[in-house]
Amino acid sequence: MFSSSIHPRFSDTDALGHINNTVIPVWFLEAREPVLRLFSPSLDVGKAALAVVRIEVDYVAETRFGSDVEVITTVAKLGHSSLQLAQEVWQDGTLTARGLATLVNFDPTERRATAIPDHVRVALAEHMPKPSEE
Amino acid sequence: MFSSSIHPRFSDTDALGHINNTVIPVWFLEAREPVLRLFSPSLDVGKAALAVVRIEVDYVAETRFGSDVEVITTVAKLGHSSLQLAQEVWQDGTLTARGLATLVNFDPTERRATAIPDHVRVALAEHMPKPSEE
Amino acid sequence: MFSSSIHPRFSDTDALGHINNTVIPVWFLEAREPVLRLFSPSLDVGKAALAVVRIEVDYVAETRFGSDVEVITTVAKLGHSSLQLAQEVWQDGTLTARGLATLVNFDPTERRATAIPDHVRVALAEHMPKPSEE
Amino acid sequence: MFSSSIHPRFSDTDALGHINNTVIPVWFLEAREPVLRLFSPSLDVGKAALAVVRIEVDYVAETRFGSDVEVITTVAKLGHSSLQLAQEVWQDGTLTARGLATLVNFDPTERRATAIPDHVRVALAEHMPKPSEE
Repeated sequence: MFSSSIHPRFSDTDALGHINNTVIPVWFLEAREPVLRLFSPSLDVGKAALAVVRIEVDYVAETRFGSDVEVITTVAKLGHSSLQLAQEVWQDGTLTARGLATLVNFDPTERRATAIPDHVRVALAEHMPKPSEE
Repeated sequence: MFSSSIHPRFSDTDALGHINNTVIPVWFLEAREPVLRLFSPSLDVGKAALAVVRIEVDYVAETRFGSDVEVITTVAKLGHSSLQLAQEVWQDGTLTARGLATLVNFDPTERRATAIPDHVRVALAEHMPKPSEE
Repeated sequence: MFSSSIHPRFSDTDALGHINNTVIPVWFLEAREPVLRLFSPSLDVGKAALAVVRIEVDYVAETRFGSDVEVITTVAKLGHSSLQLAQEVWQDGTLTARGLATLVNFDPTERRATAIPDHVRVALAEHMPKPSEE
Repeated sequence: MFSSSIHPRFSDTDALGHINNTVIPVWFLEAREPVLRLFSPSLDVGKAALAVVRIEVDYVAETRFGSDVEVITTVAKLGHSSLQLAQEVWQDGTLTARGLATLVNFDPTERRATAIPDHVRVALAEHMPKPSEE
């Protein structure tokens, strides 16, 4: 499980008075950074990149300005060159959004999908929910 | 079918050189504006709002800076108080992203879901794909 | 004079009900695109870039969602490798923001400022306000 | 002196490989939040708001993705209903941007500028640079 604390920006709000729905995918992207660091510790986008193939977001409750959110990220599936991450936004004890992101390990030089290296796979597997957590 | 022409902003790009994946939901939101106008011609958010309940986005190809995109929006499902919109991003003849948004007609005063008015339902039905289009 | 029509996005609003002040620099950047095209017609950021050295923005009136804005850009100063652009946001006949951007012609390969090419200088000079306009 | 630690988002980068210049005003806005809290501890935008009248930003060096930034905010001037804040972005020991924001204490109910309350003025004065710091 990865956990990221994110500070909502006033510019993340909209005229309805809450965090705009398009900001949640931005926070989910930010919260996937520790996953990207497993592939490239220096976050060098010239060497490694996780291409986003698909996202799903369920908006469960309004997210407000003025209180930090916690984004929880777990590895839901682990394929040959792709992986699926489950993500949740929590604010003041309330789940406000849930997401699923399908990513592909992308080689920026060859410009194609490439196998997830073994040492990364091992590290990712530690972030899969354990049977007792399900 | 609703069609919106959108001009990618340089600030929409990221260090990988293309439009960042989090921008596509922003464009989809922008392209839903004609739908919102059916509910509130003056776009008065104090009187009508479409709450986003769920989005899905499939990233099919890279979207580039330097060329306008066309976002096509059709009504996929029409419920009592909710509707589902199918959306596509096209750039230079290529489909680059596909999305599905589930919205609820939200009464800002009562702060709850409310039935889609009949005249809006009739207008929305005209934007459902015809059998021959499927 | 360059003129760009920009469609405010709902995600550009904030909880105060208007366009967030941080969006104006984004629109000004978008409206500088025709200037960038004079340097690089294909907008190839690997070949030419205008590095932003300084911006100033005066917020004159609230900018609203629901009505397009017109951004007017003129060349205020033309130096050896730098230029200054004056920009204005107009909405429904009202000036809502005024800006000044100082840019440097940046060579992405050499990674340093470089002289504005003569043919670009001639083209830019046509966008300086004429004495009678001042 | 107020100090805010901000985590650059990958979506804050642009195709030139660094943080896009339009993101700096967003960070400066985020870093002014402790100032807003002096006016409204609960950040209730219906009760208090700081309207931005003018911003200036000098871009001193490139800001990168992959390393947190520190935004330093001091009170440069204190008027009857307005104040001016000086702000700086620091990353890995390097000053990358400098800004100046002129704000007006805005009464959302009356919709006009209003005097800065005495207790807020006292609190703000503590964040002015001392003679020895100048």
